[in-house]
Amino acid sequence: MSILMVGSVAMDSVETPFGKAEAVLGGSAIYSSVSASYFTEVQLVAVVGTDFPEEHLALLADRQIDLGGLERAPGQTFRWAGRYGFDLSEPETLETRLNVFEQFRPKVPEPSRDAEFVFLANIDPELQLTVLRQMRHPRLVACDTMNFWIERKREGLERVLEKVDVVIINEAEARQLSGEPNLVRAARRILGAGPDTLVIKRGEYGALMFSNDSIFSAPGYPLESIFDPTGAGDAFAGGFLGYLANTRDLTDEGLRRAVIFGSVMASFTVEDFSLNRLRQLTYPEIEARYKEFKRLAHFEDI
Amino acid sequence: MSILMVGSVAMDSVETPFGKAEAVLGGSAIYSSVSASYFTEVQLVAVVGTDFPEEHLALLADRQIDLGGLERAPGQTFRWAGRYGFDLSEPETLETRLNVFEQFRPKVPEPSRDAEFVFLANIDPELQLTVLRQMRHPRLVACDTMNFWIERKREGLERVLEKVDVVIINEAEARQLSGEPNLVRAARRILGAGPDTLVIKRGEYGALMFSNDSIFSAPGYPLESIFDPTGAGDAFAGGFLGYLANTRDLTDEGLRRAVIFGSVMASFTVEDFSLNRLRQLTYPEIEARYKEFKRLAHFEDI
Repeated sequence: MSILMVGSVAMDSVETPFGKAEAVLGGSAIYSSVSASYFTEVQLVAVVGTDFPEEHLALLADRQIDLGGLERAPGQTFRWAGRYGFDLSEPETLETRLNVFEQFRPKVPEPSRDAEFVFLANIDPELQLTVLRQMRHPRLVACDTMNFWIERKREGLERVLEKVDVVIINEAEARQLSGEPNLVRAARRILGAGPDTLVIKRGEYGALMFSNDSIFSAPGYPLESIFDPTGAGDAFAGGFLGYLANTRDLTDEGLRRAVIFGSVMASFTVEDFSLNRLRQLTYPEIEARYKEFKRLAHFEDI
Repeated sequence: MSILMVGSVAMDSVETPFGKAEAVLGGSAIYSSVSASYFTEVQLVAVVGTDFPEEHLALLADRQIDLGGLERAPGQTFRWAGRYGFDLSEPETLETRLNVFEQFRPKVPEPSRDAEFVFLANIDPELQLTVLRQMRHPRLVACDTMNFWIERKREGLERVLEKVDVVIINEAEARQLSGEPNLVRAARRILGAGPDTLVIKRGEYGALMFSNDSIFSAPGYPLESIFDPTGAGDAFAGGFLGYLANTRDLTDEGLRRAVIFGSVMASFTVEDFSLNRLRQLTYPEIEARYKEFKRLAHFEDI
């Protein structure tokens, strides 16, 4: 089954305590698409400027990503610059130039309107709704969001929550969206607003998945060197949804495995700048790391 | 098998966003002993003042804890006052009065010198060494420590690390002790200093256990209301060591189960002030929560 990914394409400049990368490929739609491409067919809906390098298009084409919905607009590609401290948690944003992304109005190509799985990455909730109106009969829709939209576009975001099946956000966003510091209560409120499933990303601490009758805690993968956390959350969403689109197994067990596949893809992503690690994976490597997660979390029943 | 617990007995005054408790029973030796008492025989080595209430002694006796090593010294019992903010992480210490604890020189009663399991809770490393010199042939020794000793008694602490089998500390302490922000590297350094096993407590995020050939990640139990985190780390150590002393299973699988039992005991502890929840548990409740941990962390292999 195929998955439609809608989000940003960016040229990122990133500084971490371990190095620096200038104007490298990034953006939520890119990390999620490349990650999902190891599991299923991916259709990308996004916008780039005329400066977008051919080599990046080649990378996406190499991963068999359908670029029919990738608009090329006059102007520059979205640029983001950020810096991470030693704890590698939230980066300090040094610069954001929206460029062509500012006027982005997602248009889903006719054949992609039948896609059964949809990921609405972190963009304006109004645009997320625009995408949903173009889809004919999605089987599972997931969305991400961020503090900016929670503060400024709450009404639109609430309409998105009513329409999606899965929300994938981080811990701080879950607390902010629900107004609840306690995550169990935060989850109950968010599930009450529409989705059946809430996945809370916790960085090095792993992820929690809540549904109305189950909580799943996935471990973080203990990495000896985390090089650059950029894109980990989107790679997580890509692995999670890519696995679901591939198996179409939406049972609790299937969703739990999907969380682990998401965690696997995030763990590879942070091992290098940009998509340097994520782009050159093999499926056996992905399976091997899944098994490492299994061993990491394993304990016997009593 | 029995376990010897050495640490503090305190009268705690605690404020959280959810309430207040004045001069209630606390201290590392108390939380760890009561927790371990659900699994094995416990011998307590600690000191209290003449003001220590009879009802607290009765509570310990009710839990069948051997009080032969509980010294009653002239003066007041150790008192601590602290306040937690909404995130319930590290408390702000409002007052510490060491009182009789200042002159504590642990004396292990003759019959207890044969104890096979020993927990050296967070006290001066020199005192931890004093205890070890009194033990005849301990099978497994575990210790805790804190920033104060890491900064001021490093030499003594390093001698402790050479002699113990298991170190049980929190994330910040692991980073400070090793001088490594990355936990995998921090663990390798600490294991290099002596112990075979390192357990890193991460509060609501669970725990990591490192040995030379295995890493285990235990989930945190998602609680809807965390009332008071005081004592959770010591209750963890008590459950962990109590289970090991009971089963004498020191294999990797046994240690993993012990981490879960430690997590179970910590999760009960934070549900109420002082030992209000921990003191009135039943073993079936403990087993039921173990099974909840199992379900929480479960995912199928591929």
